[in-house]
Amino acid sequence: MARALEGIRIVDLTHVLAGPVATMILADLGAEVIHIEPPHGDDAREFGPFAGEPGKNRSAYFVSLNRNKKSMVLDLKQEKGKQLLRELIAISDVIIENYRPTTMSDLGFTWEEIQRINPAIIYASISGFGHDTPPEYSSLPAYDIIAQAYSGFMSITGPEDGAPCRAGASVGDIFAGHQAAVGIMAALIHREKTGQGQYYDGSMVDGLFSVMENAVVQHTVGHRIPKPLGSAHPSIAPFQSIPTRDGWMVIAIGNDSIWKRFCAVIGREDLSEHPEFKTNSLRSRNRKALIEIVEKVMVEKTSRDWSRILERESIPHSPINNIKQICEDPCIEHRDMLADIDQPQMGRIKIAGSPLHLSETPGEVYAPAPLLGEHTEEILKNLLQYADEDIARLKKNGVINSG
Amino acid sequence: MARALEGIRIVDLTHVLAGPVATMILADLGAEVIHIEPPHGDDAREFGPFAGEPGKNRSAYFVSLNRNKKSMVLDLKQEKGKQLLRELIAISDVIIENYRPTTMSDLGFTWEEIQRINPAIIYASISGFGHDTPPEYSSLPAYDIIAQAYSGFMSITGPEDGAPCRAGASVGDIFAGHQAAVGIMAALIHREKTGQGQYYDGSMVDGLFSVMENAVVQHTVGHRIPKPLGSAHPSIAPFQSIPTRDGWMVIAIGNDSIWKRFCAVIGREDLSEHPEFKTNSLRSRNRKALIEIVEKVMVEKTSRDWSRILERESIPHSPINNIKQICEDPCIEHRDMLADIDQPQMGRIKIAGSPLHLSETPGEVYAPAPLLGEHTEEILKNLLQYADEDIARLKKNGVINSG
Repeated sequence: MARALEGIRIVDLTHVLAGPVATMILADLGAEVIHIEPPHGDDAREFGPFAGEPGKNRSAYFVSLNRNKKSMVLDLKQEKGKQLLRELIAISDVIIENYRPTTMSDLGFTWEEIQRINPAIIYASISGFGHDTPPEYSSLPAYDIIAQAYSGFMSITGPEDGAPCRAGASVGDIFAGHQAAVGIMAALIHREKTGQGQYYDGSMVDGLFSVMENAVVQHTVGHRIPKPLGSAHPSIAPFQSIPTRDGWMVIAIGNDSIWKRFCAVIGREDLSEHPEFKTNSLRSRNRKALIEIVEKVMVEKTSRDWSRILERESIPHSPINNIKQICEDPCIEHRDMLADIDQPQMGRIKIAGSPLHLSETPGEVYAPAPLLGEHTEEILKNLLQYADEDIARLKKNGVINSG
Repeated sequence: MARALEGIRIVDLTHVLAGPVATMILADLGAEVIHIEPPHGDDAREFGPFAGEPGKNRSAYFVSLNRNKKSMVLDLKQEKGKQLLRELIAISDVIIENYRPTTMSDLGFTWEEIQRINPAIIYASISGFGHDTPPEYSSLPAYDIIAQAYSGFMSITGPEDGAPCRAGASVGDIFAGHQAAVGIMAALIHREKTGQGQYYDGSMVDGLFSVMENAVVQHTVGHRIPKPLGSAHPSIAPFQSIPTRDGWMVIAIGNDSIWKRFCAVIGREDLSEHPEFKTNSLRSRNRKALIEIVEKVMVEKTSRDWSRILERESIPHSPINNIKQICEDPCIEHRDMLADIDQPQMGRIKIAGSPLHLSETPGEVYAPAPLLGEHTEEILKNLLQYADEDIARLKKNGVINSG
């Protein structure tokens, strides 16, 4: 199939997560992503789970983030490595990195210098607190847990009266990655019209701050500080996870008529007109007492039995699938959300596919992740027109991978 | 400043959250978003927190999601309302909706019909489980909590041995919204080259499934089912939230040399060479015992005192800011992440700004959210060339708002 970003070349200086998520999205849409790695490789190559020959530590985590990309090894500590990077910048549409804010300029690649090399280029950076930020922030580390904690996201996630929890996936990195992809595509659209390049200055803390939906206005307008609610909804009840005989499930009783049906199903018609529970606002106010009653009933049957019963009465509910269960779900299969990939040194493995279901130019997993430096020679020869003897010299001097 | 999506017109049939997030992103980038609302308005107009005159229920939540958009009221239950929608589709670049999968076709707007009206249009839908999905899924409700539960996201979020928790923000809706924005922009780029429109079929469950990073390969490759870990990291320790004398904070001891400095700071140099704790893999394995020791020390000082001490030794850490604290943080101020907006009927309020910091075409909050139907007449007159007497008739028949 056609790919929307075919013909767009991206110099990808990212590592581990936020940056690689951005370039994964763009590569899935067809951009040519050249992942520049230091001689020891992207740190994510060391992270489990591992596949293939035991003891060789071949990271399936790296594969899941770097499918569809090319890998080129460059030692940017050497002047010749920097020179090769300049040559790549000159022939690319986008350069992206997620080092600490000072790293690129310390290497000599300020935005001014990058523009000088290629005035139409789009330069995207992702960092914990942004490049243009108060000076004391720019040296802070950008771990996902720090973005989740600093942004306020963690203060609204977790049980009602317990320890603050992270979202189980690294949403600090992953939202920043999605937003960088959006920023880069906006810049591509603008460049198409004007020929003008530009600079995207992404921050993981900004990214999470911007997705906290009603939490921000709860404070700025409502003058209250939102707190974690476990799985409960601030103003609808019962609308949360409930234990059953063999696990947990979610019920989502969104209005009073669903509540009536629910009361009938659990054999407690008395509750539907009860002065403490008959309207949603009463149920929200008396949530603790309500949930105690609901829990007592629901713990008597298995999740599967409840699903069948609630289904029949069109009462919104959901199993709380674990990762095995969702991976085996017919809906994931039908929508091709688990991609089979023939990964060198690993064999056939399954990774999460692209959610970008476009009819003409869908996001796709069309190539495996690259081995470290797999495309170095190809890029030197075909894109930068280096001769074999030059490449041999670069190898010898450790500017690129040894092959 | 210039805006990347200036000149792009979007017919926005969305409501509440996933769809409105997508069109918020596109409107922040300059697209002309015409939010079509039923006569009673988008349900989000009823959701708190409220601002302005007490008792009037003017939703700041709605404002935070719909800044920069126009509002037009259309009664799509009337044939004339459908006719007006057809006329809008004919002159727009994008149409987007997040109804249940059957709603648009029941109204007569199948993808085939939309294409017939405007062959170059991009049609984006967002639903809980997708339009192209096994039949038993297409009628399921698409609440955020159901997407978080069904996708497996909730099974990895929450305390280690407690109830499954939601991420505190509606990440099921919000990732789907970001992904739809990406899909639409990819389609715009493809259309620019080919003239071809296309159909985007977004699913909230796919969206979350695709962002669970290592959880999926943990199962498909590692053959284990990941579980919730509170705030802890699966393979680094200590790297989590810890209680202090007056609250909680995060410490992120990413490697053994940071661990050594941390041991010195807490006056427990003995631990840095301790046979159970001296390397990260030992600390991960013995995390329970480790955290008990760390907690005993950290509970003796306040979070602020610890911050000062850890700062001095360059030990990664973070406060767990609540929403008030992050809203008042200098970094949010510096990066203009709280936008002041003059909102009719509400006055000056603060909402979260755009994280799309582009140097030439930044995402911006440049206009307030529309009153219900505020732009109906303007659109009928200027875009669809309706005469005053026609508009009066439409009003009288309740096809549009009464003005």
